Amino acid sequence: MFSKILIANRGEIAVRIIRAARELGIETVAVYSEADKEALHAILADEAICIGPARSVESYLNMNAVLSAAVVTGAQAIHPGFGFLSENSKFATMCEEVGIKFIGPSGQVMDAMGDKINARTEMIKAQVPVIPGSDGEVYNADEALEIAQRIGYPVMLKASAGGGGKGIRKVERAEDLIAAFENASAEAQAAFGNGAMYLERVIYPARHIEVQILADQQGNVIHLGERDCSIQRNNQKVLEESPSIAIGKTMRDEIGASAVRAAQSVGYENAGTIEFLLDEAKGEFYFMEMNTRVQVEHPVTEFVTGIDIVKEQIRLAAGEALSITQEEVTFTGHAIECRINAENPAFNFAPSPGTITNLHLPAGGVGLRVDSAVYPGYTIPPYYDSMIAKVIVHGETRFEALMKMQRALYEFDIDGVMTNVDFQLNLISDEHVVAGDYDTAYLAEHFLPSYQEK
Amino acid sequence: MFSKILIANRGEIAVRIIRAARELGIETVAVYSEADKEALHAILADEAICIGPARSVESYLNMNAVLSAAVVTGAQAIHPGFGFLSENSKFATMCEEVGIKFIGPSGQVMDAMGDKINARTEMIKAQVPVIPGSDGEVYNADEALEIAQRIGYPVMLKASAGGGGKGIRKVERAEDLIAAFENASAEAQAAFGNGAMYLERVIYPARHIEVQILADQQGNVIHLGERDCSIQRNNQKVLEESPSIAIGKTMRDEIGASAVRAAQSVGYENAGTIEFLLDEAKGEFYFMEMNTRVQVEHPVTEFVTGIDIVKEQIRLAAGEALSITQEEVTFTGHAIECRINAENPAFNFAPSPGTITNLHLPAGGVGLRVDSAVYPGYTIPPYYDSMIAKVIVHGETRFEALMKMQRALYEFDIDGVMTNVDFQLNLISDEHVVAGDYDTAYLAEHFLPSYQEK
Repeated sequence: MFSKILIANRGEIAVRIIRAARELGIETVAVYSEADKEALHAILADEAICIGPARSVESYLNMNAVLSAAVVTGAQAIHPGFGFLSENSKFATMCEEVGIKFIGPSGQVMDAMGDKINARTEMIKAQVPVIPGSDGEVYNADEALEIAQRIGYPVMLKASAGGGGKGIRKVERAEDLIAAFENASAEAQAAFGNGAMYLERVIYPARHIEVQILADQQGNVIHLGERDCSIQRNNQKVLEESPSIAIGKTMRDEIGASAVRAAQSVGYENAGTIEFLLDEAKGEFYFMEMNTRVQVEHPVTEFVTGIDIVKEQIRLAAGEALSITQEEVTFTGHAIECRINAENPAFNFAPSPGTITNLHLPAGGVGLRVDSAVYPGYTIPPYYDSMIAKVIVHGETRFEALMKMQRALYEFDIDGVMTNVDFQLNLISDEHVVAGDYDTAYLAEHFLPSYQEK
Repeated sequence: MFSKILIANRGEIAVRIIRAARELGIETVAVYSEADKEALHAILADEAICIGPARSVESYLNMNAVLSAAVVTGAQAIHPGFGFLSENSKFATMCEEVGIKFIGPSGQVMDAMGDKINARTEMIKAQVPVIPGSDGEVYNADEALEIAQRIGYPVMLKASAGGGGKGIRKVERAEDLIAAFENASAEAQAAFGNGAMYLERVIYPARHIEVQILADQQGNVIHLGERDCSIQRNNQKVLEESPSIAIGKTMRDEIGASAVRAAQSVGYENAGTIEFLLDEAKGEFYFMEMNTRVQVEHPVTEFVTGIDIVKEQIRLAAGEALSITQEEVTFTGHAIECRINAENPAFNFAPSPGTITNLHLPAGGVGLRVDSAVYPGYTIPPYYDSMIAKVIVHGETRFEALMKMQRALYEFDIDGVMTNVDFQLNLISDEHVVAGDYDTAYLAEHFLPSYQEK
């Protein structure tokens, strides 16, 4: 086991990792930007090293600075958390080259799953259902028209080298396809120097269902069930829960087995998440993508399985074999997470940085957990993600979990910055959310318009 | 189910009950003394009523004031918490008479278990092992000498009507018995107007093992396993854990079954705890007494069983049957609780009331819970118990739980008052505590002397 690790992140996930490491008897090194001198992760770690100015590109995304901090402090491993360098294959490879263990999969595996067309091909080989679409790259509009005819409208055209929303078009009808293809391909050519495209059917309405997996270096892979993360705003998850109300035992086994095959097919190691779209009416799920890191919403899985995913990540990175088999994974009760952001829901959720003058986090009783990195007197800097806390509850039933979340959010008291606490309270009291009757479009198309009218 | 309950208590247990009630959709009424205007329980409850001056006898122990508050607010039930009126049979009966449900057993059952000699007789009838001793009251020294000869020295002489340490003597040798008996009996006569005594063998060394039970009004009783509360100072528990390292599966079943028989024999209802002394060397346990209320240390049982004992209390009081059978109770992992008091360990643990100027409670991660009623800026009044928080952890193994407790206490940061946090940190790092090798005398006779030398 490692005796010292560096945490290449900030905020609640950095604090979460420091705590897990400390419980394993491992010393911790925090890195922080000039804006984060007073950040809790820098205070809590055994050592803390400033790695640059406030802007992420000069600090948390500065690979040389992070790696130097690890070398200087003698850290044997780096936990990247989520965001920042967590899915940067170049950084993972750099770590490997200097003999520091990157707590996650290899850079090669990240690349294999990061290339959308390659990932799709791998998944087909592994018999993981993929969204009906083109097999590989498509270079001309006529070919695209033919494929669209076969898979059915609406279709999504996506740039093979894509990212950041460039070279992407939704096409509802055949007569619009050729123009859209040429347009998107030209945009991709301009943005990425590569006009190759691929097509996928649009799955709508759909639920966002993801499966947590754990893989050791010995080739064993298990899954920890699913999370339903369909409640999203601008592709940002807002509320997550496990189990999903849309998934029964049979489908849980199927989607779990698919996730395990997906990870095995690419020789995955450490914790990861396979994201699927679920067409609830048809009862069919499709591979969307793999996240090769710990997720924000991992605590809901921890609550229902009792497994500490961050500790497992560290143990797996140290070469330990999985301590449990798939048969030993049990699911108990229901867990829900609400992300608490310093933002103004009444002003299009604009970030609300500032100084926290008063803070009372919900606590106590059975089945409540608050992961946070803020404290009274702390100034939330304007440079980073606006998430300041995660409230996670666990109940015997989904109803009990909802009641517990209501109680917790009711107790959440913070002054000095605006937050989405009241928004979340409204959300978990919404009749569709209470009934579990929602899809990925529900928040934006139904809940938000009526909320904003209030 | 009730729609409104009154909580006749203060501090963390009042807050704990308010939270449980709220999660059940029940409105809450807090009562508070003039010293507790700013107390968290008074702030968090839906309604709060001042019931008198700071001194407990004029407020929290003032039965008429508490009951009037319940009547005025239309509360259908009263949860007494622990301490104060929780084991006052007169109060329980008064509640019954005005048609307000007392959340606990009837006054009659409390009296039956409160009378030590009667409880002993009941336990013998129920085939629950009792400490070898006299059968009923003893009125003269010669009879006492004969009984002592039979049960073996050392023996404890106790006043039948006893309490508060009056009329109690430990006798090591036969030649001291007659004088001690006459002395103690005279003291009892003076203090209680009743010189009757009883004798018990002194069980030493011993562990304090207690069993949590739940009983419904339909006559069903289950137990939730044991807690080891042997780490005590002046009969005050300091650290509690479950399971006990001294108890294996066979004895767990036996002691659990004894606790169930004990509760059934007196027609017990609601939550309760049967306290036993365990002679570890002989592998024998003996009934000590029954606590007819929720215990401070109930969270360790909640962690290992997943059962919310306070919610169960409310449901059982409302007449619901137990929702689970004994076979359905499962035990997972290991839980430890450390009581955090505002006190000065270097000055004989003298209470340290005052204003909390800064507070960071441990939080986050898997298996950690802090039940507390303090907040930054809060002034701890000098009138009540010095306990300000309970830190409870749950790990897969006892070692993981200890590491987690260490991490949690390390994070506990409080300014403005003195606390026993560092004392607890030392205690959980003590080699005997780490090994689980302790009895009820360990803290006072071994740990404290060496701690005070430091």
